[in-house]
Amino acid sequence: MSEVYALRRTRLRECCNAGGSAAALVTRPANVRYLAGPAPEGAVLLLSPAEDFLVCAGLPDDRGEQSRPDEALRVHVVPGTGGDPAVEAAGLAAAGDADSLAVEEHHLTVTRHRALRSVVPGLRLANVGGAVEQLRVVKDEEEISCLRIGAEIADQALGELLESILVGRTERHLALELERRLVDHGADGPAFATSVATGPNAGRPGHRPTDRRVEEGDFLSVCLGAAYRGYRCEIGRTFVIGTAPADWQIELYDLVFTAQRAGRESLVPGAACRDVDRAARQVLDSAGYAAALPALTGHGVGLEIDEDPQLTPGTMGKLDACVPVTVEPGVHLPGRGGVRIDDTLVVRPEADGGPELLTITTKELLAL
Amino acid sequence: MSEVYALRRTRLRECCNAGGSAAALVTRPANVRYLAGPAPEGAVLLLSPAEDFLVCAGLPDDRGEQSRPDEALRVHVVPGTGGDPAVEAAGLAAAGDADSLAVEEHHLTVTRHRALRSVVPGLRLANVGGAVEQLRVVKDEEEISCLRIGAEIADQALGELLESILVGRTERHLALELERRLVDHGADGPAFATSVATGPNAGRPGHRPTDRRVEEGDFLSVCLGAAYRGYRCEIGRTFVIGTAPADWQIELYDLVFTAQRAGRESLVPGAACRDVDRAARQVLDSAGYAAALPALTGHGVGLEIDEDPQLTPGTMGKLDACVPVTVEPGVHLPGRGGVRIDDTLVVRPEADGGPELLTITTKELLAL
Repeated sequence: MSEVYALRRTRLRECCNAGGSAAALVTRPANVRYLAGPAPEGAVLLLSPAEDFLVCAGLPDDRGEQSRPDEALRVHVVPGTGGDPAVEAAGLAAAGDADSLAVEEHHLTVTRHRALRSVVPGLRLANVGGAVEQLRVVKDEEEISCLRIGAEIADQALGELLESILVGRTERHLALELERRLVDHGADGPAFATSVATGPNAGRPGHRPTDRRVEEGDFLSVCLGAAYRGYRCEIGRTFVIGTAPADWQIELYDLVFTAQRAGRESLVPGAACRDVDRAARQVLDSAGYAAALPALTGHGVGLEIDEDPQLTPGTMGKLDACVPVTVEPGVHLPGRGGVRIDDTLVVRPEADGGPELLTITTKELLAL
Repeated sequence: MSEVYALRRTRLRECCNAGGSAAALVTRPANVRYLAGPAPEGAVLLLSPAEDFLVCAGLPDDRGEQSRPDEALRVHVVPGTGGDPAVEAAGLAAAGDADSLAVEEHHLTVTRHRALRSVVPGLRLANVGGAVEQLRVVKDEEEISCLRIGAEIADQALGELLESILVGRTERHLALELERRLVDHGADGPAFATSVATGPNAGRPGHRPTDRRVEEGDFLSVCLGAAYRGYRCEIGRTFVIGTAPADWQIELYDLVFTAQRAGRESLVPGAACRDVDRAARQVLDSAGYAAALPALTGHGVGLEIDEDPQLTPGTMGKLDACVPVTVEPGVHLPGRGGVRIDDTLVVRPEADGGPELLTITTKELLAL
């Protein structure tokens, strides 16, 4: 892995040098992880002309290979207690003769930025912007393999839940049960707070589980994901509880399914992000649900559960091959509930078989 | 509750006015919650001379009284999608004739701060600093009652775990089981990621559960807490697994217990924070464990699990009555494990019976 991290740092260094900074300070945790491997909480990465440092408030744990940072990095522990690794790193940069340091202004607070300036007044602070986030968009096969395993785990957890009795159980309990099963199957933990929504809550994006119990005739929508070696995937499905779905439930489900399929089928290298969004959105729009639609119909996933690219009407830019994204249109009707169908897929060229579906749980409307 | 929120906002307003700003923008989520009640993710609070606004990216959910923001606030929804409520709020402040807006520089990123400046160039941005955090330190009885209920829930969850068979189960499973029980007993969820540490991991502060299984002869240390109506408490206990503790285990346990009791007994209104820390720390220090000690021996709790005051050797300031804090000294011996004992207590005057212990699970060394 060490060469992978070194290569990523080289790409960031080139990008900073082009911007006129010989040194860069990376503070956003997922970006530190991307460039340095697993690191202690609060650790920051300093790229400087002479050497790269991982600066930590305390010594990294040593709990096996999967939790160790890249051993090619020099680890620098902030002396004393309560010091800010970012401030310490700025001092190291200045001591290493850098005259300009590119920082992540979208992550550093005003207070920390000011502390950096005051500790090394001669150092010019530039902005590295979202350079690391941009590097993170296209994944290598090792990263995709972590997402694939995470998706398998989520599929297993969901599959087991569907075999159990659901009526009478609360949203909260079902969510906890899913999270336990994710861990049972080898996840580091849930990729995000598991959402279970029943009846009138079903289909609401980001619904936080309540004490409502599953009832006959409900829509039940579930959204979960596994974190595996730091990588986070997402799956969402909607079911009907009890004997047979009502006509309105079948119609709404078919509509959302059609929209989601249209989104999935438009995932080709070179497609504009907003065209993928439009493919899904227009199905729902033209059925009269324009007002019920969320701001996005999908997003990138990786070390964070919500990354670039965003699939929205306003996103500029195109999809590349090897970009994992969710496709997750949904409709929520206040007071009645709704449907949401969510997959994680990897954009692949048609010659390689087209988009790779990572979350393979059936999308038939199951009556449970 | 509405009067409570209004009073808190009045206190903040006075503090801002004294600093020369007629308007204040609160962005840190726990601070927004403190001043406005439960609010949607990303919502910000604008205090302006004419009126106070809760500015949200979308409409607040309506899921019952416990999840609604203070109804005395005017809710302003950012038009369109993808807008930043903080930027929108700055626009409202400028439109309301404020010439200076105090912001939370320790929470706003450099990028957001710049966006605020550029959208309303005529508005002077000042720093409200940690004013809201300072207001939050002393709790009212309603807040303490939420913490007390949270602590009861955590005690129940822990008590039930102790009645089950532990040998052979993994740290991860025990942690999930505890979290499920917290929710069973009425918690919103865990107050923080539950820590279960066995054998050589026992006593490590902030240990993240692994797949290590509980074995005979292990120390087992557990740290958990419940979130209840937004308030977060903490309890930590250490047990021995199996027949009878070894001599070194009994000695180490007694020592940490003595340190923890010394810390608890020094919790009186007017005590210096660093003296409380010293009371606990010097017991461990003088037994030769100076190097094994963490940076703090306790901290405030409330809407966040780690608030002011910090109980460390370097903390200035004194404890007031009605301040809930943890007292949590511990010793971890690399390769062998260790002991950590952690309670949440409320500082009370001696006339009221002294410190109120919220987490009442026994601190005897149980052999399970």
